[in-house]
Amino acid sequence: MRIDIITVVPGLLEGPFSHSILKRAEDKGLAEVKLHNLRDYSTDKHKQIDDYAFGGGAGMVMMIGPIARCIDALKSERDYDEVIYMTPDGETFDQGMANSLSLKGNLIILCGHYKGVDERVRQKYITKEISIGDFVLSGGELAAAVVTDAVIRLIPGVLNDETSALTDSFQDGLLAPPVFTRPAVYEGMKVPDILLSGHNGKIDEWRFEESVRRTRERRPDLLKGRDF
Amino acid sequence: MRIDIITVVPGLLEGPFSHSILKRAEDKGLAEVKLHNLRDYSTDKHKQIDDYAFGGGAGMVMMIGPIARCIDALKSERDYDEVIYMTPDGETFDQGMANSLSLKGNLIILCGHYKGVDERVRQKYITKEISIGDFVLSGGELAAAVVTDAVIRLIPGVLNDETSALTDSFQDGLLAPPVFTRPAVYEGMKVPDILLSGHNGKIDEWRFEESVRRTRERRPDLLKGRDF
Repeated sequence: MRIDIITVVPGLLEGPFSHSILKRAEDKGLAEVKLHNLRDYSTDKHKQIDDYAFGGGAGMVMMIGPIARCIDALKSERDYDEVIYMTPDGETFDQGMANSLSLKGNLIILCGHYKGVDERVRQKYITKEISIGDFVLSGGELAAAVVTDAVIRLIPGVLNDETSALTDSFQDGLLAPPVFTRPAVYEGMKVPDILLSGHNGKIDEWRFEESVRRTRERRPDLLKGRDF
Repeated sequence: MRIDIITVVPGLLEGPFSHSILKRAEDKGLAEVKLHNLRDYSTDKHKQIDDYAFGGGAGMVMMIGPIARCIDALKSERDYDEVIYMTPDGETFDQGMANSLSLKGNLIILCGHYKGVDERVRQKYITKEISIGDFVLSGGELAAAVVTDAVIRLIPGVLNDETSALTDSFQDGLLAPPVFTRPAVYEGMKVPDILLSGHNGKIDEWRFEESVRRTRERRPDLLKGRDF
């Protein structure tokens, strides 16, 4: 899988992409993430990529020209499954979307900044608009990093132990059960006896019950239509 | 406002926090973000901070000891309004929560990693659990960066033009209207005439109608109980 990210602040993303899971996926040759500085596609001597909004009002708008040149250049080199725009009014990202994107080959992710991109970029180039939640960020960069991380960790071989991702929250529609590690007693707080019992069947049963209980308490919406 | 972030991969967060809005907020003295490497609080010669889960199964669990020492050290220096844990089973982050956190003084944000933290950390230290959405990341770091960004940009004075944040999606419960900038015509695609009319009243009206239309099309759930 290859992800091309178009941004005005590539430096913001260098940390996230040179650490942790993403770095490991690149080292293993399982995924490639390329950052593209939008200013490199400006034809203006001041490297301008934004301008005032037509109709007035606060906040700058990203111009179509540099974005078009960048996307066209990428498309001339390979085919893309999706050209994604990160925006608060996009479709809400969730684990199902992460699963489905993890099966794709090449993706472009355009990060909005300021008041967003000229609407004509969305009309002409964007095939999928994604929001990571009902909140506003100073740019789409962190949102793009979130999507990239959630997607790439699902590619088989990226996590050291694949069953680890399968037991995460949401993969089975339930929140994960509580976890404990050593010491067995910490300042009087004890690990549940069942986890020390060595009885795998009972432990699995306890974990499933705790998952259901936690989901019922915290996210009853996830249980709707299910038989618990 | 001061935010202390506890993480096992501080390098992942250095990029996001040395660029863009967060850097500007620090330069203006409006916010301070400090990264704490959890390994510095390990008493083990291998700097171990995680261990196998009691009861078996894939994935490592973060131990209570190093986390407790780090939080206790921070708390001995100042009072904190909240000790936040980033976790997929937390309360879902939204713009309302961002607004409310932006009024706080000092926050600790603990980033989970691997299978998460020993449950006793949550019982003993955590006052608020936040999820940025129904998906799983390889760690809480990007989620912490998202929350920090969304919160800090709301502090008065951080954005250059404060009215810009007020017209963002969600602040009035609606999605933002489309935006356009120069050129007025791009490859035959024209900016709506109204935005070039210079008639501010009509432009405001058009933007409001577009906001409502877009919200109705994309997020009818936001309009529930409202009179549009």
